Amino acid sequence: MKKRIAVLPGDGIGKEVTRGAVDVLKAIGERFGHQFYFSYGKIGGSAVDSFGTPLPDETVELCRESDAVLLGAVGGPKYDQLPVHLRPERGLLKIRKELGLYANLRPTLYYSSLAESSPLRKEIIEDVDMVMVRELTGGLYFGKPSERSTQNGQDVVVDTLFYQREEMTRVIKLAFDLARQRKGKVTSVDKANVLESSRMWREVAEEVSKAYPDVTLEHVLVDNAAMQLIKNPRKFDVVVTENMFGDILSDEASVLTGSLGMLPSASLSEKGPYLYEPIHGSAPDIEGQNVANPLASILSAAMMLRLSFGLEEEAKAVENAVNEVLNAGYRTKDISSFGKKQVSTTEMIEEVKATI
Amino acid sequence: MKKRIAVLPGDGIGKEVTRGAVDVLKAIGERFGHQFYFSYGKIGGSAVDSFGTPLPDETVELCRESDAVLLGAVGGPKYDQLPVHLRPERGLLKIRKELGLYANLRPTLYYSSLAESSPLRKEIIEDVDMVMVRELTGGLYFGKPSERSTQNGQDVVVDTLFYQREEMTRVIKLAFDLARQRKGKVTSVDKANVLESSRMWREVAEEVSKAYPDVTLEHVLVDNAAMQLIKNPRKFDVVVTENMFGDILSDEASVLTGSLGMLPSASLSEKGPYLYEPIHGSAPDIEGQNVANPLASILSAAMMLRLSFGLEEEAKAVENAVNEVLNAGYRTKDISSFGKKQVSTTEMIEEVKATI
Ligand SMILES: CC(C)[C@H](C(=O)O)[C@@H](O)C(=O)O
Ligand SMILES: CC(C)[C@H](C(=O)O)[C@@H](O)C(=O)O
Repeated sequence: MKKRIAVLPGDGIGKEVTRGAVDVLKAIGERFGHQFYFSYGKIGGSAVDSFGTPLPDETVELCRESDAVLLGAVGGPKYDQLPVHLRPERGLLKIRKELGLYANLRPTLYYSSLAESSPLRKEIIEDVDMVMVRELTGGLYFGKPSERSTQNGQDVVVDTLFYQREEMTRVIKLAFDLARQRKGKVTSVDKANVLESSRMWREVAEEVSKAYPDVTLEHVLVDNAAMQLIKNPRKFDVVVTENMFGDILSDEASVLTGSLGMLPSASLSEKGPYLYEPIHGSAPDIEGQNVANPLASILSAAMMLRLSFGLEEEAKAVENAVNEVLNAGYRTKDISSFGKKQVSTTEMIEEVKATI
Repeated sequence: MKKRIAVLPGDGIGKEVTRGAVDVLKAIGERFGHQFYFSYGKIGGSAVDSFGTPLPDETVELCRESDAVLLGAVGGPKYDQLPVHLRPERGLLKIRKELGLYANLRPTLYYSSLAESSPLRKEIIEDVDMVMVRELTGGLYFGKPSERSTQNGQDVVVDTLFYQREEMTRVIKLAFDLARQRKGKVTSVDKANVLESSRMWREVAEEVSKAYPDVTLEHVLVDNAAMQLIKNPRKFDVVVTENMFGDILSDEASVLTGSLGMLPSASLSEKGPYLYEPIHGSAPDIEGQNVANPLASILSAAMMLRLSFGLEEEAKAVENAVNEVLNAGYRTKDISSFGKKQVSTTEMIEEVKATI
């Protein structure tokens, strides 16, 4: 198989961890006889430095010509004082819109080897295996108006939560399709007791569910979901929700299993290319120290193999390699504990490659 | 001191737990020589049953004539199929608006005697002592438009996040005043990298902070806050945020210390009366079984003594009584564990009264 992959390392540790994913994809290519071509583009702060914008047209072009996109992370203190439209995260928001990445998938998985790094008790998180599906191009993120004005001499401000019914339908369908391949349960999160958009969301979820008699649908209010995620995370299989609720809940879910540095994500569009990135940020405090955990980026590459290229066996090979390396006791600093072999970013990458 | 207290037991276990708070207030009145007059009103489902509306004018009148309001909880399966404007929670939203209750205060406190009931490890939650201040009458909850329409043949929906600058200022000021009496730190939560309203919020927080050189201000993005609350809850003192973020984060915070059935809340207005209620819901599944935990309602009464009546010593007396009863091993079912004396709602109330 021949595939073109756009690589956007971005800022901070983005470069260091993305190298890991690229190396691992190369190793997979060699072992399974695929040809992956990598082309590099800029996004975020490093794009502002070179092009004066966090998402140059060149980068968008590059992505459009590729079969999949691998992203590192964006942001850094150097860019915090820039005007809003030049901030690194604008690059992220814009690429979502440009590529139509309407669904963000974030698996949260329990690793028995990492249970000690979790703030939660082992008996709460044991066997947690859920996927959060977050709508990614609608809601409060892009609704207009989003502006200040003066009303009766008062300074006021407005943001707009806007959805087309069709935007709800496609992401909820995706959640049901996913649940069908998993444990057969969808938890739809909304605030239907307050928001009209949530009442529509709930209706759409009910409607979509009719075509999936084999999948169970439950509705949970967002405040209750924020509690249940901590009290009883095992009860979730696929969780689907709108953009802002998803932003909050998926970050909450990411700390449950203590494996923040290991969590991958995928953002899907209707026609591709899809985009893959670790859920952690650019961590400027540890940039260049060769201590970042490359496993989230490597596991994002596994998701790419599975979802963009349909290479299930190859995806499993990456995931198994990661598990073996963990079971052998190798740990980067963030997940290290007493009695384990603490390794650098590059050493960890070498271990995973060697195991593949 | 003579004070009139409006009591709105509401639905489900609301009646059972509110009785506890009333009994304890009576005991305090006797011991300290105050006269508390209690008048009862309806809200939520029980108001729909009697008056055909979740918040009758009589109830609003009663509250306005009182010095403080004690609320139980609203809601139940019986009312779930009613049209939106008749749902029990409409009563809650409407009373907030009618009484101008713009700030909801929720303390989250670590009880060493309950550490085992928490889903989090003891070393994470030990000594947690924070107050969440949630803006309660603005944002997405009341903004207009909140409606569906058709655009280019597409079904669309909009909700509106609206704030006056002044609404931000008063609640943020309140958070700073509170921090001054506590550990001197305010964490302001927003989503300034996406929302214009959050950028204004952050500006207002900076502005207000100038008058409080003795208080430290930090800004945290809402998604990061959702993580930090679980990873490192001890780092928080006073957390202040807008309505919807506050709804989600305060429920998240409420499960940290394992004492959900023990957490009180206060909602403050500019001129009073203030409203006090446990943060738990109406729990229809255990209604009428005499097993509900009355301590959240009793501790809400303590907040009333302190915040509405300025009776600090009396408030402490209630809080100390609750601690003593817990230390003596008494537990309602929700917080009970091996080796403890499991008691009913009424027995727990008797124990607290006896200790006062
Ligand atoms: C950087 C920010 C705009 C972004 C978001 O809110 O979507 C981030 O938090 C994320 O979740 O990818
Ligand atoms: C019942 C509901 C409308 C309410 C809210 O969202 O404010 C509740 O969740 C709360 O936090 O008091």
